[in-house]
Amino acid sequence: MALKSFIEVGPDSHFPIQNLPFGIFKPEPTSPPRPGVAIGDYVLDLSTISVSGLFEGPFLSGSDCFLQPNLNKFLALGRPAWKEARATLQNLLSADEAKLRDNPNLREKSLVPMSKVEMLLPIAIGDYTDFFSSMHHARNCGIMFRGPENAINPNWFQLPIAYHGRCSSIVVSGTDIIRPRGQGHPSGNSPPYFGPSRKLDFELEMAAVVGPGNELGKPVDVNEAGDHIFGLVLMNDWSARDIQAWEYVPLGPFLGKSFGTTISPWIVTLDALEPFACDAPKQDPQPLPYLAEKISKNYDISLEVQIKPAGQEDSCVVTRSNFNHLYWTVTQQLAHHTINGCNLRPGDLLGTGTISGPEPESYGCLLELTWNGQKSLSLNGTTRKFLEDGDEVVFSGCSKGDGYKVGFGTCSGKILPSP
Amino acid sequence: MALKSFIEVGPDSHFPIQNLPFGIFKPEPTSPPRPGVAIGDYVLDLSTISVSGLFEGPFLSGSDCFLQPNLNKFLALGRPAWKEARATLQNLLSADEAKLRDNPNLREKSLVPMSKVEMLLPIAIGDYTDFFSSMHHARNCGIMFRGPENAINPNWFQLPIAYHGRCSSIVVSGTDIIRPRGQGHPSGNSPPYFGPSRKLDFELEMAAVVGPGNELGKPVDVNEAGDHIFGLVLMNDWSARDIQAWEYVPLGPFLGKSFGTTISPWIVTLDALEPFACDAPKQDPQPLPYLAEKISKNYDISLEVQIKPAGQEDSCVVTRSNFNHLYWTVTQQLAHHTINGCNLRPGDLLGTGTISGPEPESYGCLLELTWNGQKSLSLNGTTRKFLEDGDEVVFSGCSKGDGYKVGFGTCSGKILPSP
Repeated sequence: MALKSFIEVGPDSHFPIQNLPFGIFKPEPTSPPRPGVAIGDYVLDLSTISVSGLFEGPFLSGSDCFLQPNLNKFLALGRPAWKEARATLQNLLSADEAKLRDNPNLREKSLVPMSKVEMLLPIAIGDYTDFFSSMHHARNCGIMFRGPENAINPNWFQLPIAYHGRCSSIVVSGTDIIRPRGQGHPSGNSPPYFGPSRKLDFELEMAAVVGPGNELGKPVDVNEAGDHIFGLVLMNDWSARDIQAWEYVPLGPFLGKSFGTTISPWIVTLDALEPFACDAPKQDPQPLPYLAEKISKNYDISLEVQIKPAGQEDSCVVTRSNFNHLYWTVTQQLAHHTINGCNLRPGDLLGTGTISGPEPESYGCLLELTWNGQKSLSLNGTTRKFLEDGDEVVFSGCSKGDGYKVGFGTCSGKILPSP
Repeated sequence: MALKSFIEVGPDSHFPIQNLPFGIFKPEPTSPPRPGVAIGDYVLDLSTISVSGLFEGPFLSGSDCFLQPNLNKFLALGRPAWKEARATLQNLLSADEAKLRDNPNLREKSLVPMSKVEMLLPIAIGDYTDFFSSMHHARNCGIMFRGPENAINPNWFQLPIAYHGRCSSIVVSGTDIIRPRGQGHPSGNSPPYFGPSRKLDFELEMAAVVGPGNELGKPVDVNEAGDHIFGLVLMNDWSARDIQAWEYVPLGPFLGKSFGTTISPWIVTLDALEPFACDAPKQDPQPLPYLAEKISKNYDISLEVQIKPAGQEDSCVVTRSNFNHLYWTVTQQLAHHTINGCNLRPGDLLGTGTISGPEPESYGCLLELTWNGQKSLSLNGTTRKFLEDGDEVVFSGCSKGDGYKVGFGTCSGKILPSP
């Protein structure tokens, strides 16, 4: 019989007992931030559970990792501690276990309605890296900017291309995004213009959250890379296409990206996603030995983007994609990242890059969906080429099990006008 | 009469009372890290001075900013506090002031011979950005990789090009650098090779250390940008040219850089550098209004790179350059960085990019000095195209005043073989 919680969880909830994603929240506006897990419409306060002595296993009993304002200390403990936490919490929340279920005082203290909490960034992010791992996205961008002959650079098939991103402007879902100003360039020899971005876009991504890091100079083997990844979040890599197009040669994206990046508040663990693991696409050419995995895994996670146009009540689905479209796996990304000796630290974020599927309805950004503004997207009777002030973009993602879902909730942001 | 300290400081010292650069050090291997300033051959322990109640001004009396393991809290206080600290310390160390001079007990506790201390990274770096602001460097790289016709991209003259760098692998001077492994690509349609980098290089840079930051969405005016910069350090942006060349299209440098970046331990303040301010080069075309400065300043800082080849006793000067070769000023860099709303935080690092001068003897990296390995550099009877295992690279930099120097000390690192 399927695992069930004593807390009622509807079949469409993203947060059944099979999931138990980790986040950081404040139960009241003035209370200090603390770790929690989502269960149905509630957040279980892990600081309370910890202080109550209910983490009794060898890794977590006596640890103060749940008395922190972020999850970094817990992440640093590694998979054995994560598995212990998951087992403890699944037991504590299960319908058959009385410890919490029959303790009204503890329930009252530890279970906070999700509608009342404020979610914060779950991690302190020391470094954020963004990959470029969807072949469909790489090909579409290549066709648009270099033509169909040389759409994908030869290096793309040999290594997971990536760039360093900006940490300071990573915000949690629900934070407004101010339209960036910057330089764009019309064409030919005209001088650049300056002003609010005319081509503001979202990018549908997910990101891996790094657990234990590695020492400088000590690469992580690709077959052990999974133990360095705690879980995944949804990520919107907001992009100003006009700023990006003018600035990115030769050193890559900079101000076209660094004005804001939104992540979902809940980190869904790889352990919760394991039932949804699937084969990664066959790679041709064969990757070099340091990238060759014994088991090459993706996850079947359905992704959806809705836009709620400025001034309207209803949202419109603009794309549906899936995490399993990624060509390079997150473990290959992590191994590649460290092969030069680069050190990762707990809480580092590894973005996947825009996750586009093969069909036009599954493209992961407006650049692809409107083919760089050459066509319009219909939304509830209005149209969009790029985002307008007041538009709200909402990502959601979940894996569908037998009678339950393991979901990420949403990752949203609304565009405010330039100052 | 020139300001003098009661501590004897030779005319060639980088650290007279006119300088007073800030760093973080441990007096004993087991003692906690703390802030200090360099004076002659000594480090003045600011935690001791602070606990002794000698910071009596309005910004610093009662502050715990010098009881921290990094300078970030002090940096966040801004220029008025920095000026107060400088005035207090110049007074305390001056030949005419008895407070410290005539207090043997306090001298004993607070003045530690520099030869005995361990220097650490002076700041916790939340984000590191590397610019590309020397025209000579940009032109040389352009000629090598794209030919003389299109050596410099048109965007280069309109904005200070930059990319996000990796924070985790920034190390303090003296830390060994392990030769990175990675993919390179010989040419044409050959498959990539994998192994230790065959083209390991240094890059002669300096970096600005950010003081007070700005809120997300609130750009810093270029004419106020100076108040957001605490000071400068020397920086070696170690680069693996073969890895970089193969990976950098289209998203910029990644593993070719992220294996290590070395900074000097002492941050020389803009206040100490003010006597060496000079006009920045005339910019043509005129920059857009958001980059147009009322006063456009560089600093006259002589820079030198020495290589001590593996197995040899003596170092060889391989290049001499100057900070004043930069086309884009550090204040323009900072204003540009925030124009899209990107937020800076205290302790952020803004690298200048390789500082090459116009003459071949002033090129700032081996890529330029050996023209991508086409010619060899003579060093004490041996030769180099790129760095070999065991080579030590030592940067130094200083400004020359009337009878004194304001210097940065050195920024060094030795290459260890790949694992």
